[in-house]
Amino acid sequence: MTRVAVDALGGDRAPGEVIAGALEAARDGVEVTLYGPQGLDTGGLPLVDAPESIDMAEKPAEAARTKTNSSLVAAVRAVAEGEADAVVSAGNTGAMLAAGLFHLRRLPGVLRPAIAVPLPARSGPSVLLDAGANADTRPEHLVQFALMGSIFAEEILGIPNPQVRLLSIGEEDEKGSQLVLEAHALLRAEPGIDFAGNAEGRDLLRGAADVVVTDGFTGNVTLKLLEGTIRELFGALREEISATPTGKLGGLLIRPAARRLRRRLDPDTYGGAYLLGLNGLAVIAHGNSGRTAVANAIRLAARGAEHGVVARLAERLPQAERAPRTRV
Amino acid sequence: MTRVAVDALGGDRAPGEVIAGALEAARDGVEVTLYGPQGLDTGGLPLVDAPESIDMAEKPAEAARTKTNSSLVAAVRAVAEGEADAVVSAGNTGAMLAAGLFHLRRLPGVLRPAIAVPLPARSGPSVLLDAGANADTRPEHLVQFALMGSIFAEEILGIPNPQVRLLSIGEEDEKGSQLVLEAHALLRAEPGIDFAGNAEGRDLLRGAADVVVTDGFTGNVTLKLLEGTIRELFGALREEISATPTGKLGGLLIRPAARRLRRRLDPDTYGGAYLLGLNGLAVIAHGNSGRTAVANAIRLAARGAEHGVVARLAERLPQAERAPRTRV
Repeated sequence: MTRVAVDALGGDRAPGEVIAGALEAARDGVEVTLYGPQGLDTGGLPLVDAPESIDMAEKPAEAARTKTNSSLVAAVRAVAEGEADAVVSAGNTGAMLAAGLFHLRRLPGVLRPAIAVPLPARSGPSVLLDAGANADTRPEHLVQFALMGSIFAEEILGIPNPQVRLLSIGEEDEKGSQLVLEAHALLRAEPGIDFAGNAEGRDLLRGAADVVVTDGFTGNVTLKLLEGTIRELFGALREEISATPTGKLGGLLIRPAARRLRRRLDPDTYGGAYLLGLNGLAVIAHGNSGRTAVANAIRLAARGAEHGVVARLAERLPQAERAPRTRV
Repeated sequence: MTRVAVDALGGDRAPGEVIAGALEAARDGVEVTLYGPQGLDTGGLPLVDAPESIDMAEKPAEAARTKTNSSLVAAVRAVAEGEADAVVSAGNTGAMLAAGLFHLRRLPGVLRPAIAVPLPARSGPSVLLDAGANADTRPEHLVQFALMGSIFAEEILGIPNPQVRLLSIGEEDEKGSQLVLEAHALLRAEPGIDFAGNAEGRDLLRGAADVVVTDGFTGNVTLKLLEGTIRELFGALREEISATPTGKLGGLLIRPAARRLRRRLDPDTYGGAYLLGLNGLAVIAHGNSGRTAVANAIRLAARGAEHGVVARLAERLPQAERAPRTRV
């Protein structure tokens, strides 16, 4: 059975919603262990004592280094020490990254870990990375993101031979920043991936590619813009509909349709983002995750462990680094 | 009367929709002159012969330099030679920028022109820049974008004392790429603007600030993502609604509400983007502009000329460059 360590104090709605989500995932057969202060009512789930908590506003690297008894760091350490197969937290993303780098360390050959986020594109799920682990990146980092994203798409999203595109400001090869132009050339020459050229922002939600690669700054801005725009549009539409009695009646009639769409676009459907490139499996859930999102994040982590995502990354990354080879 | 030179061959729907839009703006009292090949049926508007056309796929700098008889270059030159107060094109953005740099030249003190795009935020219009003129920028460019955007917000959007934010990956001052961190520090020290810190992608459509500053790469990705997401969401909602008879009936009832929202979010409501920082007024309309969008772009150009936007920029920019002063 897959063992997942869960940070009971991570996220805006911890510990209540985190424990509820953990119980839901446990009922599906995941072996969940919670990390948090003694005395927490876990509904019967095993609890490892980790009294400190790291809040959202703390400086990530410092918190991860000094708060060794925090629920977040203890849960990450459980993976490093072989007590769990994966770790999930809805807490401070930067602290999770820092704790991961410190306790799990990078896979050999990995230059930078990246945050991989499944996108609810119309043509089916795709993955965007880096969604914010690296505010500044070099072209060779983007090539590794493409490789890691391809493995994620294959193993987690179940897409054979995933197609990769580079986010840019035009589909033409010669469009982009210096970073993108250099990365584009490297990606063209990289045999380990199926590179299909650039994608534009307008294509993301339609389904630009199975894997969309970008630097962590652009990726983070993009992801937040996407979420904010979806929320804003539903809000604005509700407002317009409520302005007239006819509109209100129509609103009642389209409610099931709107709900279906919201569910498809809801980031909680996937529950979390992978931190790829570490020597251990770490999943970050949204800070405002409710029980369903937490349960989905735990399932996502378990699926990653079952598919041996870390081993697959270890297998392909350093080889791709040193000696390019044809696709197997 | 304000004189606007219009590129009759610019855009996917030229010349038909461009001429129709020009006629609409002319009826409002703008003195429009079309630039295009002799014999074009302009519905009575004056036409200056400019037989060549620059298509969307051409290399911008080369096309702008070599096609001196093109409708785009001739219309830009009309402003440089004092025959028009502003120029509008729905054609190749890069060629417009290149022709602007060559024939209008930059205002003294301006390091880089920027594309300023009005955003349909819920709290009212705001302006995003740079939306794509500069794929690579330095921190001091972003400070100038903030100044130019403030003047645009005051003069064109009618916002007194506009507030400026820097697009980043967190609201905290210490979050962002190296470029953003350095620009943040410079913006804090700049007396000519009302800098309120960072904004995140999620705030853009809600109304993050009156002026949102970013590099041209992020700005272009952002703008296209926003447009694509809005279009995609309306499409997906229509699809979900059409899936059931009840939904279809509801869809009919909410149609006026959905139309109001679409109109508010439609980029054609503003019609175009300003190229700020040139010694002459240039407005770029969407490549797929219809007559209304073209008419709005011409009105936007006329308004800029009437408000003396270029003179206001000239007045404030070099001073801000050399000797910081308190706001007047």
